[in-house]
Amino acid sequence: MNNYTIIKIVFRGKSIKLTSYFIISVLVLDKLKEYVKDNKDDIVSDLRSLIKHPSVSAQGIGIDECAGVLNSIMRDAGLESRIIRIENGNPIVYGEVKGKKGSKTILFYGHYDVQPAEPLDAWRYNPFSGIVTDDKIYGRGSADSKGNVIAIVKAIKAILELYDELPVNVKVLIEGEEEISSVNLPVFVEKNKDMLNADACVCFDGSLNPSGSPNIFAGLKGLLYVELRCKTAMVDMHSSLAPLVHNAAWILVKALNSIKKDGKIAIPNWYDGVKVPSKKDLELLENLDYDLESIKSSYGVKEFIGDVKGKAALKRLLFEPTCNIAGIYAGYVASGSKTVLPSEAYAKIDFRLVYDQNPDMLLNKLKKYLKDEGYDNIDVIKLGSLEPSKTDPSENIVKCTQDAARKVYGKEPSLFPNSWASGPDYVFTKILKIPSVWTGCSPANANIHAPNEFTSISNVLDGICYISSIMQEFSTYK
Amino acid sequence: MNNYTIIKIVFRGKSIKLTSYFIISVLVLDKLKEYVKDNKDDIVSDLRSLIKHPSVSAQGIGIDECAGVLNSIMRDAGLESRIIRIENGNPIVYGEVKGKKGSKTILFYGHYDVQPAEPLDAWRYNPFSGIVTDDKIYGRGSADSKGNVIAIVKAIKAILELYDELPVNVKVLIEGEEEISSVNLPVFVEKNKDMLNADACVCFDGSLNPSGSPNIFAGLKGLLYVELRCKTAMVDMHSSLAPLVHNAAWILVKALNSIKKDGKIAIPNWYDGVKVPSKKDLELLENLDYDLESIKSSYGVKEFIGDVKGKAALKRLLFEPTCNIAGIYAGYVASGSKTVLPSEAYAKIDFRLVYDQNPDMLLNKLKKYLKDEGYDNIDVIKLGSLEPSKTDPSENIVKCTQDAARKVYGKEPSLFPNSWASGPDYVFTKILKIPSVWTGCSPANANIHAPNEFTSISNVLDGICYISSIMQEFSTYK
Repeated sequence: MNNYTIIKIVFRGKSIKLTSYFIISVLVLDKLKEYVKDNKDDIVSDLRSLIKHPSVSAQGIGIDECAGVLNSIMRDAGLESRIIRIENGNPIVYGEVKGKKGSKTILFYGHYDVQPAEPLDAWRYNPFSGIVTDDKIYGRGSADSKGNVIAIVKAIKAILELYDELPVNVKVLIEGEEEISSVNLPVFVEKNKDMLNADACVCFDGSLNPSGSPNIFAGLKGLLYVELRCKTAMVDMHSSLAPLVHNAAWILVKALNSIKKDGKIAIPNWYDGVKVPSKKDLELLENLDYDLESIKSSYGVKEFIGDVKGKAALKRLLFEPTCNIAGIYAGYVASGSKTVLPSEAYAKIDFRLVYDQNPDMLLNKLKKYLKDEGYDNIDVIKLGSLEPSKTDPSENIVKCTQDAARKVYGKEPSLFPNSWASGPDYVFTKILKIPSVWTGCSPANANIHAPNEFTSISNVLDGICYISSIMQEFSTYK
Repeated sequence: MNNYTIIKIVFRGKSIKLTSYFIISVLVLDKLKEYVKDNKDDIVSDLRSLIKHPSVSAQGIGIDECAGVLNSIMRDAGLESRIIRIENGNPIVYGEVKGKKGSKTILFYGHYDVQPAEPLDAWRYNPFSGIVTDDKIYGRGSADSKGNVIAIVKAIKAILELYDELPVNVKVLIEGEEEISSVNLPVFVEKNKDMLNADACVCFDGSLNPSGSPNIFAGLKGLLYVELRCKTAMVDMHSSLAPLVHNAAWILVKALNSIKKDGKIAIPNWYDGVKVPSKKDLELLENLDYDLESIKSSYGVKEFIGDVKGKAALKRLLFEPTCNIAGIYAGYVASGSKTVLPSEAYAKIDFRLVYDQNPDMLLNKLKKYLKDEGYDNIDVIKLGSLEPSKTDPSENIVKCTQDAARKVYGKEPSLFPNSWASGPDYVFTKILKIPSVWTGCSPANANIHAPNEFTSISNVLDGICYISSIMQEFSTYK
C-alpha cells in the first residue's frame, strides 16, 4: 500500500484525481464496516463481559478477574498477550502482534480500571450488569474506557481476520491504574523501554465531540494532587474558647487564600517552565471550532470566570495552569447548628500543569511557600501526580489520526494543541520519547465518572474502524 | 430572719462578733446537709428518671414525655406547676411557690432539653440509662442540665419540708429549647412579663470550677450563628474545567478570608456598640484567679493565639467578640483523590458577641458586607441568635450568690464580669429588666456536649444546699 498510482475519475461532472491508496482505503473501510456489523454480537458480548467485571482501582475491587478476562479477549483476537504483575500495584495486560515485514510500530495505550460506581442509588441499572437498551450499553467503565479497549482489540482481530496480516507492528498496553493517577506506569515504562519501543503511541481513552467526530489531543495537562492537613489540637473544643485557641479551619482558609491572588497562583516561581502556547499552538487554536457555550447550559453556569468568551476562553481552558479546591472539610457540617471549634481541617487540591511544569518541583515550591508563610501546622500530602505532555501537531501520528477520523466519521475532527484534562501521556512522550496522540471513540456526554455511564454500540463499531484506519494510514507515512 | 442581733463568741482565743442571722444560716445549712443525705435516694431516683427521658431538642426526641416527668417532680416538690405549650416549639414547665408574706421574688431558670448523644458508640454506657457508679450518674443531660434542674426543685422541696415556708417567693421556668438557641424564649418572656416578674433571676445551668467552687457570671456573651452557602452551578463538574468555571469552594474561602484581618473581624462597624470591659469589669478581672493554662494540657494546645498569657488571656477570653468557623464543607472529602470542581460549598459560622452588640444588626452588616464585596452568589442563613447580657456585679443577687457559695463550698467562688459562653440570660436582663446571675452545681470537666457526660451525686446534693442558701441570703438583703 506504499506505492500510489494516480487515477482520474469523473464524479458529478467534475474530474477528480485520486491515488490508488485512497481507493484501497475506501474499499478497506467498506469491508471493515461490513465486518463489524457481522461481528456485532461477539464485540458486544466481550464488552459486556468486561463491564460485568468491576475493576474499581480506587477500591481494589475485581482487578485481577477483569485483567484475566481482558487477556483472554486479547488472545482470542490474535495478540500474543499476557498479564504482567506489578509489585504493590494492579497488573498490566500487554500484547503484541507483528505486522508485515519492515513495517513501523504503533503502541496502543488504554486502561481497564474504572471509577467507583457510587452513589449506587443514582443508577437506573446495576452499574456492573452491562444492560443493553437499543444502541446503548450501560455500566461503570462502559465509556471510560472499556468501550475504547474493545475497539483497539477488535480492530486488530478484524484486520487479521480480513487480511491475515497487520499493516504495522502493534503493541497494546492496557493498565489497571489510570483512575488512580497511573501510579506505577512511569517506572514500568522506564524498566521496559525496549519492549515498549515504537514509532508512535495512540492513547485510546477519549471521546467524540458533541458534533460526533473525534477529539484529538497533541498534549495533555499534568496534575499534582495534594491534601493539605491542618491540626491545632487533640480534640475539637467548645467554640467559646475561640478568643484563645487556634481554629484549624481558619488557618486552612487563610493558607488557601494566600495561594491564589487575582486568579493567579501566588506561589513564587509557579509559572517557571511554562512553554505553552507556542506560535504553532496558537495557529492551531485559531482554526479550532469548539463550542464552549454548551458547558454553560449543561451545568447551569451563568458566566465564565472574567466573562471570557470564544477563542479567548478556549485558549485559557487549554493553556492555563490551575489550582482547584476539589474538597474541603472541617468541624460540624450536618444540619442545624453546633458551636464547635475544629481542631482539624483538610482540603484536597488539584493543580493542573501545562507543558513543561514539573509536579515534583511544584510540590516542593508549595511546601516551601507554606513554611515560609508560617504555616507550620499544615502538612502537605501528595496523593498523585502526572507530568504534562506535548507532541508536535505536525508529527505523522497526529496527521494520520486526523486522516483516519475524517474518513471514518466523514467530518473534520477537533485537533487540540493541548487537552484541559490530564493523563499518563507523558510516559510515552518523555520516557519512550515518541510522539503520541490522545483520542478515542466514546460518545460525548456519556456520564463518565458519574452515575448512568453508558457507551453506544455504533460508536464502538466506528471506533474499531477508526483504529484500523489509523494503522493503515500510519503504514503509508514515511 | 431579717432581724439581726449582734452576739459575741470566743473562737480559738479570739473574740468574734456574729449576727444571729449568721448563726441561723449555719444551723440551717447543717439541717439542709442532713436533709439531702437522708433524702438522697429520692433525689437520685428523680434525677435518673429525668435522664431516662431523652428530650433531645435538636432531634425532637422525647420532649413532651420529659416535660411531663419534670412537671410531676415539681408538683411533688410543692410547686404549683404546669406545662405551657409553645406554638411550633417545645413546652415550658413553669411553677411557683409563694414565700412568706412581703418577701422578695427570685425567678429560677433552667432547661430540660439536652444535646444529641451522638456518636453513640463512644459511650461507655447507654446515654439514656442514668447508670450510677459510686458517686457518678452517667447520661446525656446529667450535668447539662438535669442535675441543676433537680437541685432547684429539690431545694424548694427541702425548705418546704423543713420549715413549711420559703424565705422568698419563687418562680421556676424550665425551658426545652436551650440547646437550640432558646428560639421561642424571648417571645414567651415578652408575652408573660407580669407572670415572670421578679426581683432577680438565677440561671442555674452552670458548673463548678476545677477547684470545686461555683463559677458565677454577671453577664454572658451573645451569639449569631449563620450558614454561608455558595452555589455556582447545578452540579459538580470535572476539575479540568477550572480555568473557566467558578469553584464554589474558592469563592467561599475568599469570602471567609475577607471577613477577618489580623485576628479582628473586618466587617465595617462590627465593634460598634461594644461597651465592655468597663472599669468595674477590669477591677473584677484583676481579683480573679482562674487557671487557663489547664486548657492547653486538656486539649493538647501548644500555645494561645498571639501567645497571650495570664490576665491578658483571661481578658481576651471574656471580652473578645469572635468569628468562629464551626464547620466547612465542599466537594470530595472521602479518602484518596477525585478531581471534582464543587458547585456548592458552605460554612457554619458562630459569632460571639459582647455587651451590647446586637445580633440582628450584625447579621445585616454581614449581609451588606458580602454584597458590597461582590459575593452575590453567597446566601447568608441565620440559624440562631442570642443577645449578650450584663448585670452589675454589685447587685444584691450577685453578692448573695457569692455568699451562698462561700458558705456551702467553703471556698471563694469565681465571679466573672462576663462569661465566654452564651445563653438566654438577656431575656431576663433586657426583657424583664431584672439583675441575673448564671451559676450551677455540675462538676467541672463533666463531658458536657460530649460522650460519657456525667454528674456527681454529691455535687447535686451540694447544689440543693447552694440554691437554698441563695434564697435565704437574698431574703436578708434590702
